[in-house]
Amino acid sequence: MKLSKEELLAKAQKPADDAMKWHPYYRGKVEVIPKCAITGVDDFAVWYTPGVAAPCKDIAANPEKVFEHTNKANMVAVVSDGTRVLGLGDIGPEAGMPVMEGKAILFKYLGGVDAFPICLDTKDPDDIIKTVKLISPSFGGINLEDISQPKCFYVLDTLRKEAKIPVWHDDQQGTAAVTLAGLINALKIVGKAIDQVEIAMVGAGAANIAISRVLIAAGVDPQKMVVVDSKGILHEGRTELKEKYKEKWELCEKTNAKGKRGGIPEALKGADVCISLSKPGPDTIKKDWISGMAKEAIVFACANPIPEIWPWEAKEAGARIVATGRSDFPNQVNNSLGFPAIFRGTLDVMAKTITDEMCIEAAYELARCAEDKGINEDYLIPTMDEWEVYPREAAAVGMKAIEQGVARIKKSKEELLDQATKIIKRARDEVELLMKEGIILPLPK
Amino acid sequence: MKLSKEELLAKAQKPADDAMKWHPYYRGKVEVIPKCAITGVDDFAVWYTPGVAAPCKDIAANPEKVFEHTNKANMVAVVSDGTRVLGLGDIGPEAGMPVMEGKAILFKYLGGVDAFPICLDTKDPDDIIKTVKLISPSFGGINLEDISQPKCFYVLDTLRKEAKIPVWHDDQQGTAAVTLAGLINALKIVGKAIDQVEIAMVGAGAANIAISRVLIAAGVDPQKMVVVDSKGILHEGRTELKEKYKEKWELCEKTNAKGKRGGIPEALKGADVCISLSKPGPDTIKKDWISGMAKEAIVFACANPIPEIWPWEAKEAGARIVATGRSDFPNQVNNSLGFPAIFRGTLDVMAKTITDEMCIEAAYELARCAEDKGINEDYLIPTMDEWEVYPREAAAVGMKAIEQGVARIKKSKEELLDQATKIIKRARDEVELLMKEGIILPLPK
Repeated sequence: MKLSKEELLAKAQKPADDAMKWHPYYRGKVEVIPKCAITGVDDFAVWYTPGVAAPCKDIAANPEKVFEHTNKANMVAVVSDGTRVLGLGDIGPEAGMPVMEGKAILFKYLGGVDAFPICLDTKDPDDIIKTVKLISPSFGGINLEDISQPKCFYVLDTLRKEAKIPVWHDDQQGTAAVTLAGLINALKIVGKAIDQVEIAMVGAGAANIAISRVLIAAGVDPQKMVVVDSKGILHEGRTELKEKYKEKWELCEKTNAKGKRGGIPEALKGADVCISLSKPGPDTIKKDWISGMAKEAIVFACANPIPEIWPWEAKEAGARIVATGRSDFPNQVNNSLGFPAIFRGTLDVMAKTITDEMCIEAAYELARCAEDKGINEDYLIPTMDEWEVYPREAAAVGMKAIEQGVARIKKSKEELLDQATKIIKRARDEVELLMKEGIILPLPK
Repeated sequence: MKLSKEELLAKAQKPADDAMKWHPYYRGKVEVIPKCAITGVDDFAVWYTPGVAAPCKDIAANPEKVFEHTNKANMVAVVSDGTRVLGLGDIGPEAGMPVMEGKAILFKYLGGVDAFPICLDTKDPDDIIKTVKLISPSFGGINLEDISQPKCFYVLDTLRKEAKIPVWHDDQQGTAAVTLAGLINALKIVGKAIDQVEIAMVGAGAANIAISRVLIAAGVDPQKMVVVDSKGILHEGRTELKEKYKEKWELCEKTNAKGKRGGIPEALKGADVCISLSKPGPDTIKKDWISGMAKEAIVFACANPIPEIWPWEAKEAGARIVATGRSDFPNQVNNSLGFPAIFRGTLDVMAKTITDEMCIEAAYELARCAEDKGINEDYLIPTMDEWEVYPREAAAVGMKAIEQGVARIKKSKEELLDQATKIIKRARDEVELLMKEGIILPLPK
């Protein structure tokens, strides 16, 4: 299991090499096709003029009918300005497209959600907000992606208030939901209570700030939380953040009741949990610092492509449970376990927004899915190929939306589960069929 | 063949009734699916993180590579603000969606073009322009649709100048191309030359203004053209148009060398050709007025759902050839014969723009397709089910783009024909397969 940094980077090279072969071979990862039968060109008299005028008039008279007569109810825009694409930074809208297309096929294959990649030729947050609002008649929801911070907070908060459809930022709520799922099961294994643990958050990017918010909403005591950014621990003396970074300043005020000072080692001292989404390792977090944590320590070292500390080193230093962002170690904290199902559930009840509580519910259902199979130190969360997870998560999200009064449609949990299962199965069957019959060509050698 | 107005309207009712059944049954006409193979979740390490970073970096270093690594090269946005949807007027962006989805499936089924419907929540032309520019990194072209005049001219002209990808307005260039195709063959039948005929343009909406421009570019003598709007014939005395409607004022200056005054009957007097895209009939144009036209008169009465004059009445009044916008009369002037193939040809050579000359070339090829089968008074233009027409038209458009120096890729006519044939056949096979295997359900009873 122990790999050198070089070996691990070499393993990461294979997907990159394949990607450079596969992408130009298919020339794009998404296509737009008819969802309805076309038995001949005469059908266009119904799908297009003159027949189509009837549903148009119906929607003009009853705006909600757009969810019946069009695909709006299942269509999500994956919107980015290309300013923080993966770990690549500001590479621009065109260069961000392969990621957004990849996200779109994850949405479809895992959640049965039609997702359309839109990269915007602007970095101005107000232009992003305005454009999203202007295109929203065509969509049932918006997934913001890879937008740099701190503007991503302003963009998300404004759109959640002002857009007519649910808007979320996967790097915030999505990451938070899946991380929480892992933490819930990790705490079960070590037998600690969520409202009692001391948590050190290493890194204060958009993801970790959102995780902090959601963990607090899920019951973590903010006074027992310590957050570290590149300048050190957040505390009330960090007044330079007051003006220019309100999300961090709120954490300065709310967290760290003990008034800890210093950097990562001081933050980890005595902590039960470390959640790190920080600089790629392997030496961002040192063994000694892990040794300073409480007994039965839980370490989430989620930087990519190299975790902040090797999992085996963290264990040698005394950590009981380690999770990373990589699929080749146990306990991958993987966003793809969240967004496809959370949107599935949101769309299936035509929810007006995606609340933090809906995300937390998704996390608990995700945790239960793993628990049902039997959790252990090396199996905290399901993996992407356990696809029965997605309908369960979707149904849980939908039920929470109904309970919170943000759903436009009421259904039973069984109905939601059944509907989500059918939609996701159809999406997978569709790809399989197109591959089998050669409409989608086999992967190149 | 003679039908009463009531019978004809009743015939138009059947598609409307079917549309109200079919639309809610499928809940949308487009879906977004993977275009690439997915053999299991492990492939996402290539299609998404970590592998996808490689094509992202490649595009960041070489912007043109976005056409190789993503579907940009085959993706068109169908953009509307819902202000002039079919004959329904300003019904708003949501109510326009069924039309834009219908357009999208025509693009795919007839042209193999991936088209995505985007209805904008604004009526402001500058907002439309700005939004189209901001979303353009994701697209290879923009099809503007159903935007009211006169702002549609400003929107199109500005975007043709300022956008980085080809932009066209189907109600302008698309209608013009197909009308010209019909006229070319009609003139062959009556043995008149395009630069000699007197043409009366009845109606001065966006479509007829664009048709006038394209006809002139194709060789019609503007001095022999007369245009009529709702206030009468355009002439140099119509100075009220100077300020508020520059496209019409240009026609006042350029056309009508004889200085005709009056309305439709005066415009038609002695004309060889009538091209009417005006108020729905059947009495917008009267028999007497057709009788006043030159011998072997050609009448395009293209208002929907009822032509400006019944075809049989126009014939009784002396017209030799009559075309309409309806599929249940001979000689349907149908936009769907144009845009799917014109975009196919444009995308296949990665053209930077769609010139009027490319549209004219499409018209000539469309005319030749019909001629090859043998044209007659009742068969001027191919119909939508003659699908071999589309690759021919696409190849002609591509060759013209290469000739004009607006193409990024050079290919032979045979290569273009072969490529377009394969792409369009794949799109049709795809829909057929999905229907056969029940992924797309059969039409409801």
